[in-house]
Amino acid sequence: MDFLKEFEERIIEVNKSLEKFNEEKEAPQNTIYKAMNYSLHAGGKRIRPVIMMAAAELMGASRESVIPFACAIEMIHTYSLIHDDLPCMDDDDLRRGKPTNHKVYGEAMAVLAGDALLNKAFEIMLKNSQISPNMTLAAMAEIANAAGTEGMIGGQVIDIESEGKPIDAVTLMTLHLHKTAALIMVSARVGALLGGGGREDLLAMEEFARYLGIAFQIKDDILDVTGNEEILGKKIGADAAKKKSTFVSLYGIEQSENMLSDYTQKAIDSLSHYGEKAEFLIELSKFLLSREN
Amino acid sequence: MDFLKEFEERIIEVNKSLEKFNEEKEAPQNTIYKAMNYSLHAGGKRIRPVIMMAAAELMGASRESVIPFACAIEMIHTYSLIHDDLPCMDDDDLRRGKPTNHKVYGEAMAVLAGDALLNKAFEIMLKNSQISPNMTLAAMAEIANAAGTEGMIGGQVIDIESEGKPIDAVTLMTLHLHKTAALIMVSARVGALLGGGGREDLLAMEEFARYLGIAFQIKDDILDVTGNEEILGKKIGADAAKKKSTFVSLYGIEQSENMLSDYTQKAIDSLSHYGEKAEFLIELSKFLLSREN
Repeated sequence: MDFLKEFEERIIEVNKSLEKFNEEKEAPQNTIYKAMNYSLHAGGKRIRPVIMMAAAELMGASRESVIPFACAIEMIHTYSLIHDDLPCMDDDDLRRGKPTNHKVYGEAMAVLAGDALLNKAFEIMLKNSQISPNMTLAAMAEIANAAGTEGMIGGQVIDIESEGKPIDAVTLMTLHLHKTAALIMVSARVGALLGGGGREDLLAMEEFARYLGIAFQIKDDILDVTGNEEILGKKIGADAAKKKSTFVSLYGIEQSENMLSDYTQKAIDSLSHYGEKAEFLIELSKFLLSREN
Repeated sequence: MDFLKEFEERIIEVNKSLEKFNEEKEAPQNTIYKAMNYSLHAGGKRIRPVIMMAAAELMGASRESVIPFACAIEMIHTYSLIHDDLPCMDDDDLRRGKPTNHKVYGEAMAVLAGDALLNKAFEIMLKNSQISPNMTLAAMAEIANAAGTEGMIGGQVIDIESEGKPIDAVTLMTLHLHKTAALIMVSARVGALLGGGGREDLLAMEEFARYLGIAFQIKDDILDVTGNEEILGKKIGADAAKKKSTFVSLYGIEQSENMLSDYTQKAIDSLSHYGEKAEFLIELSKFLLSREN
């Protein structure tokens, strides 16, 4: 398998659908579409939608069938980044080498662009789902739950409340299971669900994505210390400057690298039941392990 | 009919359900529930949910059947107020006589509380709807549309882009049809839809709520000039201080009062087909005409 070619193909498919689902409308509301699309097309790797598509394919379904849900997840992820970057939150000026949303469109419009992306995520699933009403509702409920107070938003709350004080290993893990892993886990689960997987498949996919999600965060924390600013597209050392507890601040670089390998291997092991059919997800896990941005 | 008693009964029903749907969870995400509930229970008049319930009853359905949707609309309305009050938006310190959300919980938590309420609105509809999957999806699609870029958020964009410059009557009307009327219109439409109304009913309800929504905004603009600060629960003259164009700044007080009566009468006329069955909505229209906050 030419992993990068397969990956690229799926990214292009997601990008095309995202464009279609958020076409710019006429003035006067025109600016909001520009602000939404600015962040939506700022070079994201589309990890979450690609995982959802791959999970559906692993169950034997077509990846096209999950497209509205995959795009919705990417919109939810993007809204969370826009709001996270706001001056009152992480106050970041750069993301993926580009000025953050509020730097370009102003804070008020950035707040609205985030709100609009969350709202649009639900609109897209409601209006474009090709699957049965019951399954559509079930998949949407999983996504709403993972994005909400018991999922991603809950993680952001822990993050804010931990600011400026050291946190322990359990709190750090709870934070990232919510803030980072929840959306990745639900991507895999919903892909399996819509792809026709059974209970065992959903659990296997969730386990895979839980390990992958934590590995993803460990890598992020490592890159914030050892990364190349130009490749990374943002200043390194941001976590230390904000006195944020990270895997690196708690465990050091060497142990963090070990944990990264470990969690990645555990993610791959969760797929063993699927044999060769899981090749794409295995390669994706390795790709994320060695990424430089 | 004892309108105030009937109104109060419905408000209590909405409040109880809102409490049930957003019960506080254990730490560490506990703060977000407190912040959400602070604004959710800050003394809102529950106009939108009450209209939805009344529209369902007008179609012969029970008002209980629309409760998850009615609460969702109130959560969407509340999130929009929290974000609107932020320093980067309208920068308001008081609402309904109480400090605004960010004054109590800080800006970061206020952004998240707004996000969480929007997300929770969808969660509640997805998890608590007692009606058929098809109808649930249809009602949710209407609500998502009215809350989004072609509805309420679109109106907020026009509002932000009109800041500090005079706008014409058409732009003012477009702004408020989106920012204020869209959620009121969809409340009436969804009430009729879920209550079993036909196409004609949906259109009648939409027309009623369009006039009522604009009347509501005209009254707001009048109260900002002639209101009593203590009863109103916020400073008067805020629109003028922010150089916002309003119905009063464009038409003057006297003509605005005439327009208010006119639109209220038009709203009531839209209900003529329903005869006495529409008494509650007629009384509600009159109540909103003469409200002092």
